[in-house]
Amino acid sequence: MELRAKLLHITAGGRRIAVINDETANTLGVHSGDRIKISTGKTEAIAIANIAVHFPKNRIDLYEEIAENLNVKEDEKVDVQLAQLPESLIHVRAKLRGERLREHEIENIVKDVVERHLSEVEIAAFLTALNVYGLSAGESEAMSRAMVKTGKTLDFGEPPILDKHSIGGIPGDKTSILVVPIIAAAGFTIPKTSSRAVTSPAGTADRVETLCPVNLTINEIEKVVNKTNGCLVWGGSLELAPADDLFIQVEYPLGIDPLLLPSIMSKKKAIGATHVVIDIPTGSGAKIKTMTQAYLLASDFVDLGKRLGLTIQCALTFGEQPLGCAVGPALEAREALMALTGNGQQDLLDKATSLAGVLFEMVGIENGRRKAAAILDSGKAEEKLREIIGAQGGDAKIKPEDIPIGEKIAEVKAKQSGKVLFVSCEAVAQIAREAGAPKEKGAGVLLKAKLGDSVRAGSVLLEVYAERDGKLACALELAEQLQPIVLSRKAEEHMLLDQVPARVERDKAFVLER
Amino acid sequence: MELRAKLLHITAGGRRIAVINDETANTLGVHSGDRIKISTGKTEAIAIANIAVHFPKNRIDLYEEIAENLNVKEDEKVDVQLAQLPESLIHVRAKLRGERLREHEIENIVKDVVERHLSEVEIAAFLTALNVYGLSAGESEAMSRAMVKTGKTLDFGEPPILDKHSIGGIPGDKTSILVVPIIAAAGFTIPKTSSRAVTSPAGTADRVETLCPVNLTINEIEKVVNKTNGCLVWGGSLELAPADDLFIQVEYPLGIDPLLLPSIMSKKKAIGATHVVIDIPTGSGAKIKTMTQAYLLASDFVDLGKRLGLTIQCALTFGEQPLGCAVGPALEAREALMALTGNGQQDLLDKATSLAGVLFEMVGIENGRRKAAAILDSGKAEEKLREIIGAQGGDAKIKPEDIPIGEKIAEVKAKQSGKVLFVSCEAVAQIAREAGAPKEKGAGVLLKAKLGDSVRAGSVLLEVYAERDGKLACALELAEQLQPIVLSRKAEEHMLLDQVPARVERDKAFVLER
Repeated sequence: MELRAKLLHITAGGRRIAVINDETANTLGVHSGDRIKISTGKTEAIAIANIAVHFPKNRIDLYEEIAENLNVKEDEKVDVQLAQLPESLIHVRAKLRGERLREHEIENIVKDVVERHLSEVEIAAFLTALNVYGLSAGESEAMSRAMVKTGKTLDFGEPPILDKHSIGGIPGDKTSILVVPIIAAAGFTIPKTSSRAVTSPAGTADRVETLCPVNLTINEIEKVVNKTNGCLVWGGSLELAPADDLFIQVEYPLGIDPLLLPSIMSKKKAIGATHVVIDIPTGSGAKIKTMTQAYLLASDFVDLGKRLGLTIQCALTFGEQPLGCAVGPALEAREALMALTGNGQQDLLDKATSLAGVLFEMVGIENGRRKAAAILDSGKAEEKLREIIGAQGGDAKIKPEDIPIGEKIAEVKAKQSGKVLFVSCEAVAQIAREAGAPKEKGAGVLLKAKLGDSVRAGSVLLEVYAERDGKLACALELAEQLQPIVLSRKAEEHMLLDQVPARVERDKAFVLER
Repeated sequence: MELRAKLLHITAGGRRIAVINDETANTLGVHSGDRIKISTGKTEAIAIANIAVHFPKNRIDLYEEIAENLNVKEDEKVDVQLAQLPESLIHVRAKLRGERLREHEIENIVKDVVERHLSEVEIAAFLTALNVYGLSAGESEAMSRAMVKTGKTLDFGEPPILDKHSIGGIPGDKTSILVVPIIAAAGFTIPKTSSRAVTSPAGTADRVETLCPVNLTINEIEKVVNKTNGCLVWGGSLELAPADDLFIQVEYPLGIDPLLLPSIMSKKKAIGATHVVIDIPTGSGAKIKTMTQAYLLASDFVDLGKRLGLTIQCALTFGEQPLGCAVGPALEAREALMALTGNGQQDLLDKATSLAGVLFEMVGIENGRRKAAAILDSGKAEEKLREIIGAQGGDAKIKPEDIPIGEKIAEVKAKQSGKVLFVSCEAVAQIAREAGAPKEKGAGVLLKAKLGDSVRAGSVLLEVYAERDGKLACALELAEQLQPIVLSRKAEEHMLLDQVPARVERDKAFVLER
């Protein structure tokens, strides 16, 4: 059917959408959400049809993406037909029925996700089905490979290429800022790409950005790594696994994370990593609550790694409270810098040297942890971080006090004396976000007491930092409501954990970090 | 944050969508797909945010639906904030985790679906989860009640109010056109609302529309039923269960049907039905393949009916081949009219009198089937149908030959002699659709042989009717490829049913009928 094309000059958020009138749709046999094939004579492309009622009959309106794809001009005549279903949709429907998908079927789906041939509705259904049914090991592998294949890959030269990754969930986990320079200082290549926070108060990219630029191009990254052995950059613009970004966009509102493993592993493979330590924080404050769950997840990681040709070691780490004292990009960067100069929180130093140690032992160095500690103590790790900061375009001489933090500060004090019995990761993260993190880099929380510490009534439990008064006030109110730090004279005095029905209905917090 | 509103004057297909620039989104803490609250000072409403990159900073573009909702003018200043998640989304996420939902939670979801507060992505995820987990009896009831509550209800006066409904799947199932006049002629109220075909060659509304108007308003329907006891109208514009229509829009591209029961039962309750016969065609050509499945489904229907205050009888009917010979709106309407005047196909007459008989026995009339047959044979059913046709605005004197059928006709002949061993419902439906049904009302298929019939080589197996040459050609080609009628001298000569891998990859047909 011939229609006249009108260009809307509006983005459809990446989707290929065209608008036709309901009579036209009827004639073509098209329902809302169906695909139509639009041909100009020189080009043809598939778009999803939106059906409008009060709309001229001989017209088809094109959003930016499809108009560009077709290279069509205003008022140009185009031919429009009902299009065949993409093969990938057949496979999506199979997964909805619970069927296991084969490698080429998964590749087909991932390819069509990247090329925007599958609608958000179809992707949502697919991810929901995966969330319920789970992925088999084979499907995980196929998914990872497909994500790598449909994105760019980086080449950092001779193996081994080391990397570290955390499944996240612990506020204040600034470990990478120590691990990377430790490993790089020992002469190993560790090209760390990180993400920005999605639901947490700070992602590694947010933290490092307070020290130096992180939005480097592939060429710039290669230069930094050639020069220093390492880097701490933002992976978001490198198109390493574009399918993953599209999946995350749909997962986010749904609060599900069925592709955790392929998502992480595909990015590691895309940067050419050969040896990776995966940090799995385990405990009541973490994503993974029990050691049993952790062992299951860890063995899935190791297995997937084998299938993809990566050597994986999983580190199951303490996950009962935030790491270190600082939560929020700038506060955490300061804390990391201080840790490298000999002023570190014990848990942060212990975790960083443990993880670096695991990596060392993966490449044949005995007593890995001791070696890591030595590099740290000698000042070589600090030196290397400064080298990386400089190479990435920052000031290599930067001091902690040079990093701007929020000027609106408030204290939350202990209402009684006692020992710190419980520090809620969820609550601390929420308060830091309410204060403005990560968008306002200087915002966040500084814990003044950790598990097991003794505090006197009236002493400061935590400080809230914000860049704006309004946010400070909201964060304080939240802190009052959530009571993130629980004190007690004795553990036996806090036997009642909660009751049902609860007094206030609260949504389970969803943590979507990579 | 204050932004200037621009009216796009484009529909978003019913959705409330607004477009903002990525910097604005960043500042507000909004991600793509997040909700924003837009306030004009006099009104406020929630919209889903689409984020555009090359877009003016201080602007927010509004699609038609949200612009109307806000009653906002071009260039008016509006306040935009990140909105709280709707409570229904919390419940949707709970269902994604496999949790059972309570009545008020389901009502909350259905309400937000109707008011467009849930996005298509969220609805897709919800339906997929339901498809995998299934609904409990309580959830089915809650869903049905919520669908009724969020739509209009009709009142046809004193009980009993009778109704008939098929779960569909059998091409040519024109039974309602006989059942309704039989029941109405006996003095019972049977206000039948039907849908148009979604994936089949004809829905009852499509068939009846070739006899008389079906798009009646509520007032007009009440007049028809008052006058004749019955009606055969299209339910689509009556807003009986708007949630259902929205769910179907999402289910359709995904090929799933998790809400079959609440979908059907909510509409029955909305029209005030008290006694309903549910036709469950069972067999290799039907949706329900085995008697075991049929019994399970039937008892779910009966149970749901009890919970909703309806008396349900399920009729498990023969589902191995199309019903009667005609498939396609006009062809079927002719066949129905001829059946009422004494020229009916045996299977059609038998099924119609059986179903009408079940309804009679539900309201205390013994030997229901015999009574139904008597009404049919006496000509009273024909008289009543003509009365209904006249009352709905059609020509009460209409004759079968008055109904236009496709003028492009082609025959498919038998390549050998033998007995009809197999008639494929799926294939026949596909051929009829390829020929143009249901949009082209005169298009379809006339079967010239049914199961068990003996045919000679060269005799006509089926006739294909189309309104356009191109469609006739495509339908014929499909008939050649699909071979809907399988002949054999003896059943034992067709032992090989299929092989794997198949020679041609075919998608499983999806039947979404009500």
